[in-house]
Amino acid sequence: MPVGLHAPIADSLKPIAGIALGVAQAGVRKANRDDVLVITLPSTATVAGVFTQNKFCAAPVQLCRQFLAQNQATGLVPRALIINTGNANAVTGEDGLARATAVCAAMAEQLGCAIEQILPFSTGVIMEPLPVERIVAGIPAALENLHEDNWLRAAGAIMTTDIVAKGQSTTCLIDGQTVTVTGIAKGSGMIHPNMATMLGYIGLDARVPQAVLHTLLSTVCNESFNRVTVDGDTSTNDSFMLLANGRADAPLIDALDGAAYQALYAAVKRVAVYLAQALARDGEGATKFVTILVEEGRTTAECVQIGKAIAHSPLVKTALFASDPNLGRILAAIGYAGITDLDVSRVGLWLGDVEVVRHGGRNPEYIEANAAAVMKLEDITMRITLGRGTAQDQVWTCDFSYDYVKINAEYRS
Amino acid sequence: MPVGLHAPIADSLKPIAGIALGVAQAGVRKANRDDVLVITLPSTATVAGVFTQNKFCAAPVQLCRQFLAQNQATGLVPRALIINTGNANAVTGEDGLARATAVCAAMAEQLGCAIEQILPFSTGVIMEPLPVERIVAGIPAALENLHEDNWLRAAGAIMTTDIVAKGQSTTCLIDGQTVTVTGIAKGSGMIHPNMATMLGYIGLDARVPQAVLHTLLSTVCNESFNRVTVDGDTSTNDSFMLLANGRADAPLIDALDGAAYQALYAAVKRVAVYLAQALARDGEGATKFVTILVEEGRTTAECVQIGKAIAHSPLVKTALFASDPNLGRILAAIGYAGITDLDVSRVGLWLGDVEVVRHGGRNPEYIEANAAAVMKLEDITMRITLGRGTAQDQVWTCDFSYDYVKINAEYRS
Repeated sequence: MPVGLHAPIADSLKPIAGIALGVAQAGVRKANRDDVLVITLPSTATVAGVFTQNKFCAAPVQLCRQFLAQNQATGLVPRALIINTGNANAVTGEDGLARATAVCAAMAEQLGCAIEQILPFSTGVIMEPLPVERIVAGIPAALENLHEDNWLRAAGAIMTTDIVAKGQSTTCLIDGQTVTVTGIAKGSGMIHPNMATMLGYIGLDARVPQAVLHTLLSTVCNESFNRVTVDGDTSTNDSFMLLANGRADAPLIDALDGAAYQALYAAVKRVAVYLAQALARDGEGATKFVTILVEEGRTTAECVQIGKAIAHSPLVKTALFASDPNLGRILAAIGYAGITDLDVSRVGLWLGDVEVVRHGGRNPEYIEANAAAVMKLEDITMRITLGRGTAQDQVWTCDFSYDYVKINAEYRS
Repeated sequence: MPVGLHAPIADSLKPIAGIALGVAQAGVRKANRDDVLVITLPSTATVAGVFTQNKFCAAPVQLCRQFLAQNQATGLVPRALIINTGNANAVTGEDGLARATAVCAAMAEQLGCAIEQILPFSTGVIMEPLPVERIVAGIPAALENLHEDNWLRAAGAIMTTDIVAKGQSTTCLIDGQTVTVTGIAKGSGMIHPNMATMLGYIGLDARVPQAVLHTLLSTVCNESFNRVTVDGDTSTNDSFMLLANGRADAPLIDALDGAAYQALYAAVKRVAVYLAQALARDGEGATKFVTILVEEGRTTAECVQIGKAIAHSPLVKTALFASDPNLGRILAAIGYAGITDLDVSRVGLWLGDVEVVRHGGRNPEYIEANAAAVMKLEDITMRITLGRGTAQDQVWTCDFSYDYVKINAEYRS
C-alpha cells in the first residue's frame, strides 16, 4: 500500500516497561542538538545484536561484540547502551578502541556496574578522533532525563543526515497478554546493510532467552534491514539490537516453534520492516521510494541478487529521479546481476500495473505513457518475473538525485 | 604521469593499409550528426572479438558472436563492420534480431559477400526498435567516403554521451618492420566492462592467425578495458574488436612466445590502455580522473576486487567531486570489498604522496591540508597497501558529479 515518500512516524511510540531512554546535547560535532542517547535496561533483560560485516568495523562495534561475548560467558546482563552521533569512531585503530573504552568506563562508573555491561555505539564522520571528554560530560544530563516514554526524542538524537526521525510501535497477543514492540532507527546514506542497518534498536516487553532472541534478531534482520540499499555502501558502524525487558510478569517465549514465537516474530518483523523501509524513504536526496519484487526465481538468494543489482544501478536510480521510463536500464541490470544460466527470453517486467517486458522483449501492447505515469509517483513498485521457479523476495531502495551528490559532496563542510 | 582530465587525442591517427572507414549521417535518432560507421577489411584480415557478459546482450552482439563462429567453421573472413549509434537494439527480443539481420543483409548485398561476413554493432538507447530503413539508406553514403585515413572521423561517429572522440596510434618494430596499431573507442556511461568496453576497435598491419589474435585480444582487454568503471553498470552492447590486416608483406606473428609477439602485445596494450583510460576521463559528468593502485595483495584478483569496490562507491566518488578528503569512505569500501580474511591493521593508504592511513588507522603525521591539495587535482592517484602479499593491480575511474545525474536523468529527452 503506497504511502508517499515518507512513512508517517507513529504519533506515540509506546513505552516498554523497564527500558528508559535519556538524551543530551554534548556538542560532539555541532552545538545545540541532541547527540548522545543513553538506553538503560532492567536486570531481567536479554539483549541480542548483529553488526556490520565491514572489515573496518568501528571501534564501538568491536567493543560491543566483545562485551556481549563476555556477558554471555559470565552471565552478566548489559545495563545500558550509549550512542553518540557526529563521529563514527571508525578507522581509528588502537586509539579509537581506547576512546570507546573510556566512554564505557565513565558510564559504568556512573551506573555502578562492570564496564562490559555498557554497550557503545557511534555514527557520523569516519577517521576522526572521538571527543571523549565532551561525550562523558554529557552523560549526567542524559541520565537525568531518562524516561520510558522517550523513544521519539531518542529517534531524533541518533540522526545524522536523516531528514525524519524513524520509529514504530506495534503489539501482539501472547498467552492472552499484550506484548508491545517499539523500535527506532537512523540511516540515510552509506546504506547497504549486511547483517544490520546503520543503527536500529527494538525493545519488547517479553521474557526471551538469549538464544531465542538471537535467532529472532537474525531472522528478522535478514527480512528487513538486509533488504534495503540506498547507495550500496556498507557502513563501518551498522548495528541492530533487540532488547527484551524480561520482566517476571511478561510472557515467556523460550522455543522457536509454537504460536507464541510466531506472534512475537510477526510483531518484531512489522516494526523492523517499517524501520528498514523508512531508511530508504529517507535515503539521502531521495524523491521516490521503490519496492523491487523479484518473482519466479529458483531461490530467494537469486531474487535478492537481482533486486540488489537493480537497486544499486546509478542508471536505474537517475531514471527514477527523472521519472523517465528508460526501463531498458532495469533489464541491463538484471542481465549483469550474475545469474549465469538466466534465460532472458523468460523474463518479464511490470512497472506498477504496466507490463513493460514480456518474454525478454518489449511487450507489443506496451504504451510508454502508461509507464511514465507510474514513474511520476512517489512510491513505485517494479515486479520482475524470472520464469524459472517459485521463489520470490524483495528489495527496497530510493532514487538518485542531485541532492544525493550535494549532501555527500558537502557532508563535512 | 598526470595529464589533466582529458587525454589529448592523437593529432593524426595513423592509417592501417587495407582497413578503410566510412561515415554517414543516417538520422538514426538525431539529425545532422554522423551516426553510421562502416569499416571494411582486406580479404587477408583476421578478426577477433570479445563481448559483454550481460545476459541481456544486444541483438547485434548475438549476431556478431554467431557470425564469427560461422566464419571460423567455414574459413570465410569478415568483410566489413557496420556500427550505428543512437539505438542499442538491446532487450528487443526476436524482432531485434530480425532488424540487425536486415541491416547485415543489405550491407552484404552492397558488398557482394555472405551475410555472416558483415559484423553488426549498435550503441544508444535500450529497448527501442532499430530504424532499419534509415540505417540501410545511409550505407551508400558511408561506402562512398571509405578511406584508410578516416579513423578520427570514425571515432566521432560512434559517440553517444561522449564529450571527446577517443583514438590513439602507436608503432612497434617487428623483424625490422614498423607495425602500426591504431584504435578508437566510445563510452562514457554504463561503463563497467566485463570482457570488453562499450565499443572499441583496434587495427594493426600484421599477419596474426586467429588463435594468436584472440589470445592477444583477451590478454589486453583484461589489462585495459576490464580495469575501468564509471558507474558499475555493465552495458548490453560492449564489444572490443582486434582487426589485423594480414597483408602479405607484413610481419607474421604466429606464436605466443618470442620477441615479435611481445612487441605487438606491448603496442596493442599501449593503445588499449590509452583508450580505456580515455573512457574514464570522459565518464559522464566527470571532473576528475582517478587511478586506484592496490598493492601487497595475495592475488591480482583481490587487488582488482578492492579497487573496484572503491571505484564503485558513490560516497567515494562524490567526495572526489567535492575535493573533500573524506578518506574514511575509501577505507569503508576496502572493508566491504569481500576479502574475508583481510587484516585491517596492516592496511595503508596514500593519496598522491600523502600517507593518510598507516596500520589501519589515521597516520599520526597526517595533515589534512596536504590531502586536500591532492584532491583538488584533475588527475588523482590513490594507493592502497594491503600488507599480505606481493600482487598488485590497478583500476581507473572518475568522480560522481551533479552532471552525472543530469546527463542520465535527461538522456532520452
